[in-house]
Amino acid sequence: MLKKYSVTFLPAGQSIEVPAGTTVMKAIRDGGIDYDFPCGGARKCGKCKIRIISGNTQSFDKEKRFLRDKEIGEGIHLACFTEIHDNTVIELLQVKTGQHQILLVSEERAVKLEPHITKKYIEVKRPSIGDHQSDWKRFKRSLFEGEDESAAALDVQIPILHQLPEALRAAQYRLTAVTYGREIIGIEKGDTTGKMLGMAFDIGTTTIVGYLIDLNSGKEISAVSALNPQTKFGADVISRSNYANQEESGLEMLHRAVIGAINKLITEAAEKAGLSTEDIYLITVAGNTCMHHLFLGLSPRYISVSPYIPTISEPVVLNAASLPIRINRMGKILVLPNIAGFVGADTVAVLLAAEMDKSEQIKLMVDIGTNGEIALGSKDRIVACSTAAGPAFEGAQISSGMRGAVGAIDHVYFGEELEYSVIGGVKPRGICGSGLLDAVAGLLQTGILDDKGRFLSQEKITSPQAARYKERILQHEGLEAFLLADAAATAHGNPILVTQKDIREVQLAKGAMAAGMKILMEKLGVEVEDIHEVLLAGAFGNYLNPHSACGIGLIPKELEHRIKMIGNAAGTGAKIALVSAHEYKRAAEIAEFVDFVELASHPKFSSIFARSMYFK
Amino acid sequence: MLKKYSVTFLPAGQSIEVPAGTTVMKAIRDGGIDYDFPCGGARKCGKCKIRIISGNTQSFDKEKRFLRDKEIGEGIHLACFTEIHDNTVIELLQVKTGQHQILLVSEERAVKLEPHITKKYIEVKRPSIGDHQSDWKRFKRSLFEGEDESAAALDVQIPILHQLPEALRAAQYRLTAVTYGREIIGIEKGDTTGKMLGMAFDIGTTTIVGYLIDLNSGKEISAVSALNPQTKFGADVISRSNYANQEESGLEMLHRAVIGAINKLITEAAEKAGLSTEDIYLITVAGNTCMHHLFLGLSPRYISVSPYIPTISEPVVLNAASLPIRINRMGKILVLPNIAGFVGADTVAVLLAAEMDKSEQIKLMVDIGTNGEIALGSKDRIVACSTAAGPAFEGAQISSGMRGAVGAIDHVYFGEELEYSVIGGVKPRGICGSGLLDAVAGLLQTGILDDKGRFLSQEKITSPQAARYKERILQHEGLEAFLLADAAATAHGNPILVTQKDIREVQLAKGAMAAGMKILMEKLGVEVEDIHEVLLAGAFGNYLNPHSACGIGLIPKELEHRIKMIGNAAGTGAKIALVSAHEYKRAAEIAEFVDFVELASHPKFSSIFARSMYFK
Repeated sequence: MLKKYSVTFLPAGQSIEVPAGTTVMKAIRDGGIDYDFPCGGARKCGKCKIRIISGNTQSFDKEKRFLRDKEIGEGIHLACFTEIHDNTVIELLQVKTGQHQILLVSEERAVKLEPHITKKYIEVKRPSIGDHQSDWKRFKRSLFEGEDESAAALDVQIPILHQLPEALRAAQYRLTAVTYGREIIGIEKGDTTGKMLGMAFDIGTTTIVGYLIDLNSGKEISAVSALNPQTKFGADVISRSNYANQEESGLEMLHRAVIGAINKLITEAAEKAGLSTEDIYLITVAGNTCMHHLFLGLSPRYISVSPYIPTISEPVVLNAASLPIRINRMGKILVLPNIAGFVGADTVAVLLAAEMDKSEQIKLMVDIGTNGEIALGSKDRIVACSTAAGPAFEGAQISSGMRGAVGAIDHVYFGEELEYSVIGGVKPRGICGSGLLDAVAGLLQTGILDDKGRFLSQEKITSPQAARYKERILQHEGLEAFLLADAAATAHGNPILVTQKDIREVQLAKGAMAAGMKILMEKLGVEVEDIHEVLLAGAFGNYLNPHSACGIGLIPKELEHRIKMIGNAAGTGAKIALVSAHEYKRAAEIAEFVDFVELASHPKFSSIFARSMYFK
Repeated sequence: MLKKYSVTFLPAGQSIEVPAGTTVMKAIRDGGIDYDFPCGGARKCGKCKIRIISGNTQSFDKEKRFLRDKEIGEGIHLACFTEIHDNTVIELLQVKTGQHQILLVSEERAVKLEPHITKKYIEVKRPSIGDHQSDWKRFKRSLFEGEDESAAALDVQIPILHQLPEALRAAQYRLTAVTYGREIIGIEKGDTTGKMLGMAFDIGTTTIVGYLIDLNSGKEISAVSALNPQTKFGADVISRSNYANQEESGLEMLHRAVIGAINKLITEAAEKAGLSTEDIYLITVAGNTCMHHLFLGLSPRYISVSPYIPTISEPVVLNAASLPIRINRMGKILVLPNIAGFVGADTVAVLLAAEMDKSEQIKLMVDIGTNGEIALGSKDRIVACSTAAGPAFEGAQISSGMRGAVGAIDHVYFGEELEYSVIGGVKPRGICGSGLLDAVAGLLQTGILDDKGRFLSQEKITSPQAARYKERILQHEGLEAFLLADAAATAHGNPILVTQKDIREVQLAKGAMAAGMKILMEKLGVEVEDIHEVLLAGAFGNYLNPHSACGIGLIPKELEHRIKMIGNAAGTGAKIALVSAHEYKRAAEIAEFVDFVELASHPKFSSIFARSMYFK
């Protein structure tokens, strides 16, 4: 039998026992600790730093690629590389502030309320020796007074029948019936028709946002959000899919994680509003196809390998108790439909919110989250694709990259001096997507970078606007890098750089996005000038500087003044589907209407992609 | 804290620890031992005899009413009266042979197969980079080739989606789809259309019978049965209802008991036939209203008090997993509808099997189980009622009464000598309903009993056929009794008697049945001679001697030669509903069509009942 060792995690001091040879990453996960492994433990990102305080551990040599000499000297290691062979004390180095910047507000449009769920107050006739009909029948009789046909077709589930006899008698035969379609999903004592709640969820790869809605008025009562706890199993959909497929109970753990987070948000939203979760009868859910599958407990296995086949794309209606989602146990979960393996229900929700399928003019929708989805079209036709754009703009694979959380440089200005803003107004600890975009655009504009994304050599930097930043151009791992913040100015005492490798990552991302747009334009047979409006959806889209986005060619320069930020439109779409059965149905029509374009199958994709990486 | 004592049960030697003061009855139940408490522990029946071998116990004095001096001397007590105040060894005196005589065979009628569930073999088109539809969509597309409209409306549950991707790929895209209505409830690898199983259940108060049916042919594969394990909580529906209402978790225990028994029968039937329970996709269930409610986990509380209101009478369709019934987890349970609180789905099943609603002539249906249900009518109108007839004929409240199991006197002949037959051909240990009926009819015919049910005094017994049994008329507890078998002839060494009190119980039962028939005839406006046929359903109806039944006036004498025994027609009805969706639908129509007559609300019920108790 394997020897076991105890591992203690500082600063909180949690302890766990693990067999000899367990990686620190596994120990952290087994301990239920929320820690980021952006590459999902693939030993590629170098982000999961920890410090060994005491105890004998073994690390693989390759780990050193990701660490500075100073860090190595301080006992810093990567959790994924380090094995435990002793009773060990480990310091966790990721600071979880609990404050992450997310996007709750969004452009709203008028929606006619068409409730999925209705409430009706009824007074049921009391039984007598001469009127011996069952409780259920007399309940139905009152509910459908004067429309006998329909009463016969009503569905009921056992939990409702459990409650019915006592509810009728305790409420003096005065009840409110809660109906979903032809099914009775609730009986409440007295008249509760004034109280009807629902929640709309947008499950992002990184962030989950929920909106508590009064279904009687359609008004938002509160918005809540949390980091998607699945991030500890991998930052992007591919690493999560791998985790689900390769780890024992991996799928179950990912499924439980998202369900748990949603249930916490439901409780939080209800408590915030002083309402009971029992009063929530309906939930709508939007998310990308992988999030969609993991929410339903379905394996994303075949989404992540060619030909990228989801298990289901159609709308799914579930009983809340089956997951279980902790609203009223008879409540319903409406999951929005997907378009394809990498164009999910979140994109459908955005298109629903933006009504692109009703537009007379051609619009371009761009949603850069952890993945980048693009849709182009009008009421006549919409084409859509997905690109692997995201990670760079989410901070992954960027030397100083981080999410848009407290401590992130989110904007950079190349003026007389270099200036930047930091989320939370604190000393910076990294750079997020919008900051990186500004930095690259600024480096280009000043001429420090050339069109191919290379730093100019020192002697070639002659223009006045470039020359003033000359001393910021350093050597890093044998290549050029640009110093954004020196060690003294940062929270952790390490400089924040934009390296040549970081520039390459941005080029890959922007190249993928731009190639996607070009191929969609070709498919639809339109030119840049035909595009009437660019809709930027999602958190990143909302925070980025359009001038920078167009500056690096992420969005065609000609469209800079046609850009409209539509906020968390996926959340808006989920809200719209929540308050209107008609709009929920329309979501299915949109999912059918949109033509998915598989970029990889385009014969010239590689050459278009390669060309699009240039900043020209 | 209460002191605890160990209790050991002989002959098997199970042990359990209980707090001081626990009744032996509770200890038996807590020990999970199958023991009969016909009155449900109400201390009324005197049947739950046990022997204290060692240990200090306390019994209430009233216990002695139920015991002979000899028994008291031997340490025999009643489990319900006896409290444990010491480490105790107890001998269990009820012999559970596991052999109980039940009725499996029945009159069959031709039924056209109209399956609820269909299977279809399909070959699904493989996905490719140019055909990226979801697995679910390509599955539907194959299933409904050429009928696109309908494909859109198909329902699916998550467990099916869980299986779908792997099933498709493992089976080389060749599957059998299992459909219930518009819902996919199964996907099986390859072509399994030849295998389609269902089970029909008749849940009696005393006995549960199940039939395993090949749904492709409609043929019965095997029949299985078991005692309803709820009997240990009470012999009749009233004591079970009390148990459900008054005991903590009582309802849950009764529900679990019947579900457990059915699951055992399912396993038994499948094993017997060498088939897998996974291949069973459908179950139909018939039972009286109380059994119906307990099966569904619904409280029978309001069935058992005036005005006797069931929670639901309409047909109920359930997912097998929700109870859970251990057939295929996606299988369906179809519960037949009730008519009223005391005329249940078992009566509906009998009427469905007998097609009384299609009859041109007036028929009388009598089903004497633990309760007695009567229906009268034809295609024009059917009236039905329930009477408290049962317990006497089930052996309850009869001094030597027992169920129709091994050791029961089931027939008695008053010839030159008194003769009787015993189930199993062993020494008798009691008398069951059909034996009691023969005995009372014989005592009447020989003139030992008068029309009012009183034993003639010795001096009045002069007729030769009565005189030959003179020495069998004894005194018992100050009243006359008739000796059926003397102590030497019985298995337990106690005589088997028919006492004056037993005669009164029979009179109560037959009075109730006869009064019910009279009131139904009055309601329908018909006379005895208008009745074309008497259908005797159920186990008791099948075993009784019609001549005896008419002899005591349980059934009008005029109808003796119009009696037809239709066997376990409730089981037949459940089987018919299993193989034909049309007939299952008809069951609901029958439940609606039949007019329930509440006997107690008839102004002259008491006087009709009192008059009907006489043997005239």
